[in-house]
Amino acid sequence: MSIRIGIYGYGNLGRGVECAIAQNSDMQAVGVFTRRAPESVKTVTGVPVYSADTVLDFQDKIDVMVLCGGSATDLPKQTPELAKYFNVVDSFDTHAKIPEHLKAVHERALKANKTAVISVGWDPGMFSIGRLYGESVLSQGNTYTFWGKGVSQGHSDAIRRIDGVANAKQYTVPVESALKAVRAGENPVLTTRQKHTRECFVVVKDGADKARIEREIKTMPHYFDEYDTTVHFISNEEFEKNHSGLPHGGVVIRSGVTGENGENKHCIEYGLKLDSNAEFTASVLVAYARAVYRLQREGAFGCKTVLDIPPIYLAKESREEMIAKLL
Amino acid sequence: MSIRIGIYGYGNLGRGVECAIAQNSDMQAVGVFTRRAPESVKTVTGVPVYSADTVLDFQDKIDVMVLCGGSATDLPKQTPELAKYFNVVDSFDTHAKIPEHLKAVHERALKANKTAVISVGWDPGMFSIGRLYGESVLSQGNTYTFWGKGVSQGHSDAIRRIDGVANAKQYTVPVESALKAVRAGENPVLTTRQKHTRECFVVVKDGADKARIEREIKTMPHYFDEYDTTVHFISNEEFEKNHSGLPHGGVVIRSGVTGENGENKHCIEYGLKLDSNAEFTASVLVAYARAVYRLQREGAFGCKTVLDIPPIYLAKESREEMIAKLL
Repeated sequence: MSIRIGIYGYGNLGRGVECAIAQNSDMQAVGVFTRRAPESVKTVTGVPVYSADTVLDFQDKIDVMVLCGGSATDLPKQTPELAKYFNVVDSFDTHAKIPEHLKAVHERALKANKTAVISVGWDPGMFSIGRLYGESVLSQGNTYTFWGKGVSQGHSDAIRRIDGVANAKQYTVPVESALKAVRAGENPVLTTRQKHTRECFVVVKDGADKARIEREIKTMPHYFDEYDTTVHFISNEEFEKNHSGLPHGGVVIRSGVTGENGENKHCIEYGLKLDSNAEFTASVLVAYARAVYRLQREGAFGCKTVLDIPPIYLAKESREEMIAKLL
Repeated sequence: MSIRIGIYGYGNLGRGVECAIAQNSDMQAVGVFTRRAPESVKTVTGVPVYSADTVLDFQDKIDVMVLCGGSATDLPKQTPELAKYFNVVDSFDTHAKIPEHLKAVHERALKANKTAVISVGWDPGMFSIGRLYGESVLSQGNTYTFWGKGVSQGHSDAIRRIDGVANAKQYTVPVESALKAVRAGENPVLTTRQKHTRECFVVVKDGADKARIEREIKTMPHYFDEYDTTVHFISNEEFEKNHSGLPHGGVVIRSGVTGENGENKHCIEYGLKLDSNAEFTASVLVAYARAVYRLQREGAFGCKTVLDIPPIYLAKESREEMIAKLL
């Protein structure tokens, strides 16, 4: 019997979840739940669309609800609320608020004998796991995270809000020399500026003042002022051709030493190169939906994180098969 | 109260475990157990040495026994036997025999209310975890493992057994073009020869026939005949200077696609660069010793693998700290 998944929210992430479910033969997508008019939403693989208002009618029809809303306003409300009725998975990524969110979801899920996992994706998510394994195995060392090369949607949005900008993409780029020093086990202390640069591709409206726009970008507090930023003004054609995707990626590096006097260096590197940030995040969510389904059936109620879940719970195949094949 | 560890077997791996324990403030090494005369063994950090025959006297003094023997003859006997009396961790790495070993250890551990984890290290071990996460997240794709550049002790030993050879080191080297194709998402089908080359540094005895030695190496069944092998004859001085260590490493790569028609490529790469194979393996063993200790106290008896254990069980710090810091 396949695992019945509901998709709550239907933007890039929701579409990615729908496609990821289609790749996994042990799962089926029961429905997409939207706050928009259901008839206005067309799904990629033909999954039916329902109004979010009707979601509670699906309690017996859905094994795990995958929440695909945003971390700013959607998930802090939706995940605790839905955890009262469903097993849930979300990609909540507001780092500082994770403990609070965890607590809120845990209370609801526990009371309802449901299982939840929050902050699933690649960072937080697979990168967090990489950091934990790295620090646990090499207890004397330093952990570094570099993001990119990839599109930061928040930074791209910030540029688009500048007067005169028609469209924009911002790439976060790791500084090659910093990466090299970390990989060589030099354990450098790196400032924000020394770790990443920001590269912007901007399409302007007719007659816009490029010098002003460039200045506004480079001096923008929080987003750009602490970085070395490059601004390229390009045509709409070039933008559509070369900058329409949402690639991302990065690396988590643990650099540590062992031996009687720390004489041997070791480097653990977990890296991702992703053509589609949203679709990869969706693939991680779907793997953890499988884990949540199994945990709940075993009576492991409450809210978990990726750090709490044994790797084997993500696998489609049985434990015996995976041990024989992968160990 | 710190976790009390016993070290059973004292070669490179045992010494590595001793040094790793010294790096972890929540652990202490209670004793080294050896089949040699205890007075003939000097430990790195002054841990007391006992005869292996006395190990059962330590049942109340040791929380976890880390087994540091070899997979060929030591561990298949020692791990099941010691699992009757201790929580145990081993690095059993004879891939084909893991299911059988797991069963043998599981039965003993379960009956004795002890917890065991077998096949801990980097491969099997961290690489196995990397393969499992990769396949679970990107369900449509291929998994590749490349080893090296690093010293294969088995291959080095095989060369040393050739008549006229005084000393030898064999490096396993990934083929750069194959790595590049995999990283580019080309999903190549690779033969053994196309994945790795073998590079040998050989010191010969006076008057030895180098041409014959080179021929014997290159045609050696199982070890070299399926590979492109390079043989360098070097002086003993050069050997001591440049080839005295046991570095190793490698990468596990999962290359997969997502989207409606698999149009987006993704690459997950877990890589290791290790100055000391034995010391890194030892560091992984020690992290899992911590996990075994906790699992046994929670009543999770029997034999586990790295795939079964939640990442958080490896961490020295509390779950709350790790969630706040790493997630």
